[in-house]
Amino acid sequence: LDYQHVQVPFEITLWIMLASLAKIGFHLYNKLPSVVPESCLLIFVGLIMGGIIYSLNDKSPPVMDSDIFFLYLLPPIVLDAGYFMPSRPFFENIGTILLYAVVGTIWNVFGIGFSLYGICQVKAFQLQDVSLLHNLLFGSLIAAVDPVAVLAVFEEIHVNEKLHILVFGESLLNDAVTVVLYKLFRSFCEMPAIKSVDVFAGVGKFFVVGLGGVLVGLIFGMTAAFTTRFTKDIRVIEPLFVFLYSYLSYLTAEMFHLSGIVAIIACAMGMKRYVEANISLKSHTTVKYFMKMWSSVSDTLIFIFLGVSTIGENHEWNGPYICFTVIFCLIWRALGVLVLTFFVNRFHVNTITGKDQFIIAYGGLRGAICFSLVFLLPDFRRKKLFIAATTVVILFTVFVQGMTIRPLVDLLAVKRKRESAPTVGEQIHIRFLDHLLAGIEDISGHWGQYYWKDKLEYFNSKYLQKILLREYDQPKSSIVLLYEKLERKHAIELAEAGQLGHAPSHPFLLCAGLLCSNNDRTAITDKKLEDTLNPDVLENIQEILARNLYRIRRTGPAYNRHTLPGETEPVEHAKEILILRHKSL
Amino acid sequence: LDYQHVQVPFEITLWIMLASLAKIGFHLYNKLPSVVPESCLLIFVGLIMGGIIYSLNDKSPPVMDSDIFFLYLLPPIVLDAGYFMPSRPFFENIGTILLYAVVGTIWNVFGIGFSLYGICQVKAFQLQDVSLLHNLLFGSLIAAVDPVAVLAVFEEIHVNEKLHILVFGESLLNDAVTVVLYKLFRSFCEMPAIKSVDVFAGVGKFFVVGLGGVLVGLIFGMTAAFTTRFTKDIRVIEPLFVFLYSYLSYLTAEMFHLSGIVAIIACAMGMKRYVEANISLKSHTTVKYFMKMWSSVSDTLIFIFLGVSTIGENHEWNGPYICFTVIFCLIWRALGVLVLTFFVNRFHVNTITGKDQFIIAYGGLRGAICFSLVFLLPDFRRKKLFIAATTVVILFTVFVQGMTIRPLVDLLAVKRKRESAPTVGEQIHIRFLDHLLAGIEDISGHWGQYYWKDKLEYFNSKYLQKILLREYDQPKSSIVLLYEKLERKHAIELAEAGQLGHAPSHPFLLCAGLLCSNNDRTAITDKKLEDTLNPDVLENIQEILARNLYRIRRTGPAYNRHTLPGETEPVEHAKEILILRHKSL
Repeated sequence: LDYQHVQVPFEITLWIMLASLAKIGFHLYNKLPSVVPESCLLIFVGLIMGGIIYSLNDKSPPVMDSDIFFLYLLPPIVLDAGYFMPSRPFFENIGTILLYAVVGTIWNVFGIGFSLYGICQVKAFQLQDVSLLHNLLFGSLIAAVDPVAVLAVFEEIHVNEKLHILVFGESLLNDAVTVVLYKLFRSFCEMPAIKSVDVFAGVGKFFVVGLGGVLVGLIFGMTAAFTTRFTKDIRVIEPLFVFLYSYLSYLTAEMFHLSGIVAIIACAMGMKRYVEANISLKSHTTVKYFMKMWSSVSDTLIFIFLGVSTIGENHEWNGPYICFTVIFCLIWRALGVLVLTFFVNRFHVNTITGKDQFIIAYGGLRGAICFSLVFLLPDFRRKKLFIAATTVVILFTVFVQGMTIRPLVDLLAVKRKRESAPTVGEQIHIRFLDHLLAGIEDISGHWGQYYWKDKLEYFNSKYLQKILLREYDQPKSSIVLLYEKLERKHAIELAEAGQLGHAPSHPFLLCAGLLCSNNDRTAITDKKLEDTLNPDVLENIQEILARNLYRIRRTGPAYNRHTLPGETEPVEHAKEILILRHKSL
Repeated sequence: LDYQHVQVPFEITLWIMLASLAKIGFHLYNKLPSVVPESCLLIFVGLIMGGIIYSLNDKSPPVMDSDIFFLYLLPPIVLDAGYFMPSRPFFENIGTILLYAVVGTIWNVFGIGFSLYGICQVKAFQLQDVSLLHNLLFGSLIAAVDPVAVLAVFEEIHVNEKLHILVFGESLLNDAVTVVLYKLFRSFCEMPAIKSVDVFAGVGKFFVVGLGGVLVGLIFGMTAAFTTRFTKDIRVIEPLFVFLYSYLSYLTAEMFHLSGIVAIIACAMGMKRYVEANISLKSHTTVKYFMKMWSSVSDTLIFIFLGVSTIGENHEWNGPYICFTVIFCLIWRALGVLVLTFFVNRFHVNTITGKDQFIIAYGGLRGAICFSLVFLLPDFRRKKLFIAATTVVILFTVFVQGMTIRPLVDLLAVKRKRESAPTVGEQIHIRFLDHLLAGIEDISGHWGQYYWKDKLEYFNSKYLQKILLREYDQPKSSIVLLYEKLERKHAIELAEAGQLGHAPSHPFLLCAGLLCSNNDRTAITDKKLEDTLNPDVLENIQEILARNLYRIRRTGPAYNRHTLPGETEPVEHAKEILILRHKSL
C-alpha cells in the first residue's frame, strides 16, 4: 500500500465526492430542501463530520485554509455569478448597488467597530485590552455581506429581480471596500503611529482597487473573446479559454492587490456576448454546465468546511462581546439600509418599498469570506475571541436568518419574481422604448443610463464586434427560415397587389411613421427611424422571435444553481413543428 | 506585487494557456497539421522553449515531474481513450491484443536487454560497468509502446479499425506488464542476491496487477453507474461523477501498486452504457466534451514538457549505446510482431496481412511514459546515459516514424477506415448474426466469444440493468413515435384483413420461422426465437433505426481527438423531418 504517493489528489477527490454525495442525499427527499436551505444542511453535515474527527483524534479538525478558499473555491462561484448575472437589472440599478456596497459597507464597518469599542469600555466584560483599531479591523471583516451565502439562500426564495440584484450585487461589489478597509486597518494595527496621509491614501485606494479590478477583468475578457475567434478548427478546447482567462483575471488582480471578485465579474460579463457568438452550441452548453457544476461543488465544499472548522479549540468565549456583535450587525445594517434607501428613493420614481428594505436588511448574510479573513489576522491575544464571534455571526445569519427568510417573504407577500420569461411583444417593446428613451435623453441634454447604453451599443457594433467576433454565416434555425420564407411570400403578394406604396405593412414602419409625423424636425428621431429599418435590427427581432416561440410555454426560475435555463430537449421542438405542420395541412 | 501568493495556480494556468494557444496556432494554417503530426510540432515548441529557458538561466530547464505526469496528465488521456474505445473491435481482437501486450512486451524487454548487454561487452565502447540487470531494467522501460504517442499519430492517419485497435489496445494494456517488469528489475537491482522464488513471484504478479486493475476499475465503474441513478434532481453535478469515480479508480489502483491505466479503462468501459442511459443529454455532451478537452490539453502539455525536458545537462552521450538502442528497439519489435502474428494467423480466418504487420511494428512509438520511468530510476552512475538513450529513442520514434508513417500508409495502400457509419441494415444483420453464432457455438459446444457475449448480455439485462439503470420513461424521438404509429396502423390493417394467422409479416418473424423449420428440435433455437420476438429486442431495433436515420448521411472518422462524433445540430433533423413531411404530403 502506497498511500503517501497518491494522498493529495486522492483526498481532494474524496472531499469533492463527499460534497457531491451529500448534495444527492438532500435532493433524494424532496421535502427537506423546501424547508431548510441547502447551506444550513451542509454546515450541519460539516459540524457532524468535525465532531467525529474531533472525538476520534482528540484535537481540533483541520481549519479551512484561507489560501485554498480564496484561490480555488471562491473563483468558480464568482465566475458563475458573473457569467449568469442578469445584466439589464444590474446596470439599471448600478447606482443603488454601488451606494449600498460602498457607503453601506463603510457605514457598517465604522458603526460596528465604534459601538463594539463602546462595549469594551464596560469594565464588567473584561475587554478593556481590545483597542479601537482592533475593533474597527473586526468590524471591517464582519461587515461584509457574503455573496456565496446570499446566493445560496436567495436562489431558493425567488424574490423579484430588482430585490435580488440589489442584495446580490451589493454582496459582490463590497469586496473592493472590504479588501481595502481590512488591509488598511491591519496595517494600522502594526504601525506605531497613524498619519492623516495614510488615511487619505486609504480612501484613494478604494478607487484603485475597484476600478483596477474592472480594468483587469475587461482586458482579460476582451482577450478571451478575441482568442475564441480562432478556435473554429479545434472546437473541443473552446470552453477552456472561458475558464482560463477568467481565472487569470482573478489571479492577476489578486497579485496586484486589486479586487479579484470585481475583476472576474467584469471579465465574465465582458466576454459573455462575444464568446457566446463565437463558440459552437455544444461548447457553450459545456461552458454553462461546467460553470454550474464547478460553482455548485465549490459552494458545497465551502459550507461543509465551514461546519468542520467550527468544531475545535480555536474559540475564546466571551458572552457579551459575541452577543453584542450579533446585535450590532443586525442594527447597523438595518439603519444603513433605511438611511441609504431614503436617499435612493428621493431620486428614483421606482422606489424601494418598506418590505423590500426589510428583506435587504434581513438578507445580509455573512459567510466564508468573513471566516477566511478572520483566520488571516495576525496573531494577537484576542484573535480567538474574534474567531468565536465571527463563527457565531455566520451561524446565526445562515441558520436563523436563512431559515426564516422564506416564511417572512411569504408572510409579507414580497413581490416575487415573474415565473415566465418576457414574451416577444414585451421584448420588442422594451427594445423600442430603450431607443426612444435614449433619444429623449439626448434631446433633453440629460446624459442618463439610456444615453450611455446607446453610445456603448454603438461603440460595440462599430468597433468591438468587428475585432472580437468571428465572421461566419450563423446557422439559422428552421423556424427562422420558415418565417423568412413566409415573409418573402407575403411581400411578393403585396407587391403584386400594388399595396406596397400605400401603407407600410410592417408594424415597425407603422410605429416609426407615427413617431415621425409628431417630431419630424428632430434629427434624432430620423436616426431612430433608420435604426428601425436597419436590417440588423430586423434580424435581431427575427432572432428573438425564433428564440421565444417555444420558450413562451416554458415556465421556471431564470437563475438557479441546480438547473440550467432552457432544459427542454430539441426533440420537443421537432415534435411540435411536426404536429403544427400536420394540423395546418 | 504579491506573486508568491498566486504563483502555483498562476503558473499552472499559464502553462495550460500556452498549450492551448500553441494548438490554436497550428490549426490556423491548415497545411501544417496535414504534413507534420501535432505531437512533433509540440515537441518542437517545447525544444525551443527549453532552449530559451536554458540560454536565459544558464542551467537546465525544469524536467517534467514524474508524479505530475502519472497523477495528473496521464489519467485524462487514458480516460478519454477508454471511454471512447470502440468496444466491439476491442473485444473481438482481445486475444491478439493481449498476446502482443503481454508476450510481445516481454519479448521486447528481454530481447533489448540481452542484446544491449552484448553491446556492453565490447571493450571499445567503454560500457563494461553496465550490468545485465541494469540493461534489463532499461529494456523494461524502453520496450513499452506509449498510448499517448500512438493515439496522437494514429488518430490522424485513419487506418482500418482492426489495425488501429491492435496497436492502440496493445499500447494501453502493456502498462500492466511494464509496471511489473520495471518494478521487478528495479528491486532486483537493489537486492544483493536474487532467488528463483522472486522470479516466480514476479511472474505471478502479472496476473495480480492486470486483473486487479480490471477489478478495481469495474467496481468503481459500477458504483459510478449506480450513483447516477439518483441524480435526477441535480443534473448539473452528473458529469462530475464520471470524472471522480474514474480518477478514484486510477488512484486506488496506483495505491495498491496495480495498473492504474488498466483500472481506468475498465472503469470507463464498464460504466459507459449505464451512465449514458442515466444522465441527461446535456450532461452527456458535457462529459464527452470535457473529456476530449481535458485529454487534448494533457496531451499537449506532455509533448511540450517532453521538448522542454530534452534540453539541458541531464545526458551522458555514448554514441554506440544510443545507436544500438534505437536499432534494437526497431529490430526486436519487428521480429516480435512477425513471430506473434504467425501464431495468431494460424488460429484465425481473418488474418493480419503483411502490410498490417509492418504498420503494427512501425507504429510502436515510445513517449512520455518511458521518459517518466527513466527519471524515476534510482540514482546510479549510468542514469544519465539511460536518460540520453531514452530521449533519443522517443525523438526518433515520434519524429522519424511519426512523420513517415502517413506516407508509408499511402504508399502501401493499407486498408483505410471506412468513412461512413454502418447502415441500419448492416447493424440489424450484425446483431442477428451475433445471435445466430451464439446459438451455433452453443450447439457445437465451443464456448467462444459469441457465447460469452450472449451470456454477458443476458446477465446484464437480467441483473445489472435493474440495479444500475434508473427507471424512467425514455423520451422517444418523434421519428420513433411516428414509426410506432405506422406499425400499429399496419398491424390493425393486417388484423382486419385476417392475414395475421397465415403469414408473419415482420421480417424477423419470417427469419425466425425459417430457422425454426430447419432446426425445430433444438431447444436453443427456440430460445433465440423467443429472443427475437422479445419486445426488448424490437425496441432496441427501433432505437437503432431512430438513431441511424440521420447518421447514414453523415461521414467522418469515428475517433478523433479534435472532434466529437455526431456534431450535426438537432435543428438539422427538424428541418429534414419538415422537408420529408412536406414532400410526402
